[in-house]
Amino acid sequence: MHFMFEGVELEIVFLGTAGSTPTPDRSLPSIAIRRRGELLLFDCGEGTQRQMIKAKLGFPSKFKIFITHLHGDHIFGIPGLLHTLSLLNREKPLEIYGPKGIKDYIEAIEETVGLNLNFTLKIFEVSEGLICDCGDYIINAVWVSHSIPTLAYALIEKPRPGKFYPNKAKALGIPRGPLWKKLQMGFEIKLKDGKIVKPEEVLGPSRPGLKVVYSGDTGPCEKLIKLAYKADLLIHECTFDDSQAEWAYEEGHSTPSSVAKIALKARVKRLILTHVSARYKNTNVLEEQAKKIFSNVVVAKDFMRIELKHADL
Amino acid sequence: MHFMFEGVELEIVFLGTAGSTPTPDRSLPSIAIRRRGELLLFDCGEGTQRQMIKAKLGFPSKFKIFITHLHGDHIFGIPGLLHTLSLLNREKPLEIYGPKGIKDYIEAIEETVGLNLNFTLKIFEVSEGLICDCGDYIINAVWVSHSIPTLAYALIEKPRPGKFYPNKAKALGIPRGPLWKKLQMGFEIKLKDGKIVKPEEVLGPSRPGLKVVYSGDTGPCEKLIKLAYKADLLIHECTFDDSQAEWAYEEGHSTPSSVAKIALKARVKRLILTHVSARYKNTNVLEEQAKKIFSNVVVAKDFMRIELKHADL
Repeated sequence: MHFMFEGVELEIVFLGTAGSTPTPDRSLPSIAIRRRGELLLFDCGEGTQRQMIKAKLGFPSKFKIFITHLHGDHIFGIPGLLHTLSLLNREKPLEIYGPKGIKDYIEAIEETVGLNLNFTLKIFEVSEGLICDCGDYIINAVWVSHSIPTLAYALIEKPRPGKFYPNKAKALGIPRGPLWKKLQMGFEIKLKDGKIVKPEEVLGPSRPGLKVVYSGDTGPCEKLIKLAYKADLLIHECTFDDSQAEWAYEEGHSTPSSVAKIALKARVKRLILTHVSARYKNTNVLEEQAKKIFSNVVVAKDFMRIELKHADL
Repeated sequence: MHFMFEGVELEIVFLGTAGSTPTPDRSLPSIAIRRRGELLLFDCGEGTQRQMIKAKLGFPSKFKIFITHLHGDHIFGIPGLLHTLSLLNREKPLEIYGPKGIKDYIEAIEETVGLNLNFTLKIFEVSEGLICDCGDYIINAVWVSHSIPTLAYALIEKPRPGKFYPNKAKALGIPRGPLWKKLQMGFEIKLKDGKIVKPEEVLGPSRPGLKVVYSGDTGPCEKLIKLAYKADLLIHECTFDDSQAEWAYEEGHSTPSSVAKIALKARVKRLILTHVSARYKNTNVLEEQAKKIFSNVVVAKDFMRIELKHADL
């Protein structure tokens, strides 16, 4: 198990950054996001389970899978992963979200060769909108522009309680300890003398959570601008370079300039390009083309890790 | 493309040597055999296509796949491999051999998410006996002892013409050149004076071809002794070490001593153990236990290459 450093709220681990076919350096598409002991997997291309093992992510009980679309390079890792989770005696249900058809695909494998699952598989066929409310964050999605129905997903943390002011708490006669903690978490408390203290009496204004958006395969797509608006991180496919733009768009894929323009319009903080065609042994050309329009951009590599912290407001 | 050295008749490349679950060092089961520009793949666990790319095997037009059984760890690499062959514009038909059910499995994926094949897939559901006669070699199979129907395969080269004696040819007045070649290949020739020369007049006795046997998952199995009799190489699963023998046999798996006994009885020249459980970070224990009974044994590693040459009889 790989441990996250203190203060890191979200860790993004790029498990597979190839597009369509794997290369010696790039496995098929999959991105893991770790958050407070939970693991969210976005896409599950062939080889994902082994990449997870190599990345020392473990297979935590809190584990959800989100599939962008039903092209083989994004889903052929699901059966093997489920098979391994069963061998590891997983008992907790596993949730898989994806476009219509994901259920038929997994059930077809179960019915023909069997997956021997010893846990419940909850498969949700979803459309754009709110995908799930997971307590202190939500997952939203929009349809993007690919050759088959394809979703882009956004992980959006709900606003956090404002900054805690100890001096205000002391002035109100609240003893340091569990009551402070409760107020910090946004709950009202009752003092010994019966007085109620509301969290806003000792907290600053509520603070925004983090936002990470993952595009799935897509040509340039206006809807993504809204989904990714002011995201801390946009992870976007970039299969081809600008010289292949016409063909890329026809195939429902993006190029560095088109992605950079979306990042700029969406005012995201940071952009990472992934789903790179096997033709690019060296990805400098992709990075350089994007940088002319949006400076805070890199091309993903397998096992690259990005840590996101809450701003200290 | 990785080239074979002159004189090498068969090259065996271990693409995946794990059992059931992958590890950082071992991909899921698959073994490639190269022979005169042809590629034969035995099992196709998840990740096989990427292992093939890493091993620089290419995807030759002469390419057949043999599946031992329908457990996920041996077949979940098929869809991705077919997907990639299509993207590479393969046109020549591809043959897949395996136990009953292999057709339903592949068709189920085709029917649910599509494989977009632009070549013909010929799927043969086979039983024990002669699997295919491929000209100068055959593939035979027997049922072995696993929890579901499982085949072991033998690649058996047909006997080659005997050694050519130039002095005998000269004595018969045959001019050096194409007629020598024809005789060497086992064909009779006609000289200018009308005299017929039969190959046995200039050749020694016919020479045996090479024989390689791959077990698939199995507990100790008497049938394998016959299939592997006098093989140049036996590749046999060895999931657990001898201390786990009782449990291994119950699960339809083998241990070093049981495999070594089969190699000894079958009088094979060489033994390679594969399909190693993830619990063995260090496989010395497996090798040592086998060596006590059969000395010419190693445990396979991913990307290990074994070259087999014809004996110079």
